[in-house]
Amino acid sequence: MNQEWIVIDGLQYSNWSREIFDQMRLGGVNAVHVTVAYHENTRETLTRLGEWNQRFETDGDLIRPVFQPEDIVTAKAEGRVGIIFGAQNCSPIEDEIQLIGVLRRLGLMIMQLTYNNQSLLGAGCYESEDGGITRFGRQVIREMNRVGMLIDMSHSAERSTLEAIDFSEQPVIISHANPSEFRPALRNKSNKVLDAVAQSEGLLGFSLYPFHLKNGPDCSLEDFCDMVAWTAERMGIERIGLGSDLCQSQPQAVLEWMRNGRWSKQMDYGEGSASDSGWPDALSWFQDNRDFKGIADALSRKGFNDHELGLIMGGNWLNVLSRAATSSFETSNESGSA
Amino acid sequence: MNQEWIVIDGLQYSNWSREIFDQMRLGGVNAVHVTVAYHENTRETLTRLGEWNQRFETDGDLIRPVFQPEDIVTAKAEGRVGIIFGAQNCSPIEDEIQLIGVLRRLGLMIMQLTYNNQSLLGAGCYESEDGGITRFGRQVIREMNRVGMLIDMSHSAERSTLEAIDFSEQPVIISHANPSEFRPALRNKSNKVLDAVAQSEGLLGFSLYPFHLKNGPDCSLEDFCDMVAWTAERMGIERIGLGSDLCQSQPQAVLEWMRNGRWSKQMDYGEGSASDSGWPDALSWFQDNRDFKGIADALSRKGFNDHELGLIMGGNWLNVLSRAATSSFETSNESGSA
Repeated sequence: MNQEWIVIDGLQYSNWSREIFDQMRLGGVNAVHVTVAYHENTRETLTRLGEWNQRFETDGDLIRPVFQPEDIVTAKAEGRVGIIFGAQNCSPIEDEIQLIGVLRRLGLMIMQLTYNNQSLLGAGCYESEDGGITRFGRQVIREMNRVGMLIDMSHSAERSTLEAIDFSEQPVIISHANPSEFRPALRNKSNKVLDAVAQSEGLLGFSLYPFHLKNGPDCSLEDFCDMVAWTAERMGIERIGLGSDLCQSQPQAVLEWMRNGRWSKQMDYGEGSASDSGWPDALSWFQDNRDFKGIADALSRKGFNDHELGLIMGGNWLNVLSRAATSSFETSNESGSA
Repeated sequence: MNQEWIVIDGLQYSNWSREIFDQMRLGGVNAVHVTVAYHENTRETLTRLGEWNQRFETDGDLIRPVFQPEDIVTAKAEGRVGIIFGAQNCSPIEDEIQLIGVLRRLGLMIMQLTYNNQSLLGAGCYESEDGGITRFGRQVIREMNRVGMLIDMSHSAERSTLEAIDFSEQPVIISHANPSEFRPALRNKSNKVLDAVAQSEGLLGFSLYPFHLKNGPDCSLEDFCDMVAWTAERMGIERIGLGSDLCQSQPQAVLEWMRNGRWSKQMDYGEGSASDSGWPDALSWFQDNRDFKGIADALSRKGFNDHELGLIMGGNWLNVLSRAATSSFETSNESGSA
């Protein structure tokens, strides 16, 4: 890959280990958006952040925290991987508006307003009813805009997503999902949503989770590149990136936690089913972080030029994060003394 | 007061308002160490920090957060008052070592290991037994040293205090208390403790809480200056500062929360008593933040020169905070990129 590119993967939730961090470096990945909460409440989210602090201490030669987008550039210069914290749900803020700023200070740069189910803020993509953004949700969107936290609607229902985009004064992203055009999964996005995200100057991160792809685990790299090309045409080259949804080495129990949290006594299968309840088989061409180069090469063969590839592989992610983080909220001694 | 001085009050827990912040500015105070937790657990502490974020938003022309000691200098330059967060108890970290780093990132620069009672870390000053620093306590001291959080033993028992000083690799402070020599309150400190704090290159912040002073509310400004002069002689001019313990406009319910938290069904009276259970009358010469100038003037008459007064009024506080904060712990994008 071109050494000038900033390579960012817009969603991973792996069973973190030194081996995985090393694979990130070997794969030329400069930063990864990692999930710190699915259903965790405020207190539990702090434990997750504490676990990351332990990793920064133990594996500080390989990874570093990202508090501001500039830290991604620093990470690349240092030869470390920047870790961007995000939540896949609004559970970390519970019912308290001021916790958005508190969590932003702790480095939470991205938050989804809902995860599959109805939340206090809006509807998730598996609900049969979608009443749109709630009263609290509107307050939260305004506050996320203010403190520089990026709004992610990956697991949200359509009306809620469109209303969030409409109400937000900042770009809204889909960190990890694909166009429904290529697989009509509940988690994938309609053309209407794609157009609205593009209009907001947000971003769609292409998912490599097999259940989000045409032909599932049998999706070919060429199929994937076709999807990228189609979406680039529809949304614009500056509105797309990667959001692999890589969940490397995670046991079944973690998949069940993601899907069921503490909310159900019956098993929920997400995009899977009772007869296909486990992790899908990995794609042959994307097993771990070392495989990003193969994707870039295939996109190059598809006809994207070097500048366009730089945007897709991470440049667009850096731009949208930088734009969201432009805020007067004091997240450190430096940013406050302007 | 000399405009070159950095003026820092080492402990206040007032009923915060715009009026009080304005009095701080009028009094020439550049930074104040404010209490964010007495008995609050982790989750509740975040609510307290969220309340401060609201104040920074509403009264941002008067106050600013302090994440690093340099922010105090910035606050002075801006004509704002720097707010230094501290906890009077270890309740905010519950039983979790990694929460020290998490709270440090949120700006918690100072933490007491105990508040009056036995804690998970050591014994408080009202316990009849003092078994010293616990197993967890030793881990916490090491971690506070590592992340740059200052150890405060104001409300701790003697053996625990001496062991903390012995075990810590950084200076240990008493943010607000006085020498027992001047009033033998359980909250005041023996010569042995004063000497150990001085030896650790820590600091004693003189309390203006009447129950900590000779003659209580009738303590004269001259009595106070005598105490300062005696302590400067014993501990050294670089080891003393102010820690007023000002609790302006607080109702009786707050005093009871401080003393009783949730741990007792019987009323505990702290340094008061059943017949004297309320807030003590304020000193005639220290009613609010506008009275620091009078103290500096009296100390000047007592014979302290300008340089010495600068140290007492805040220079020593800035030095000890700066020393504690010297750490490799990444608290922001800037400090991490060294």
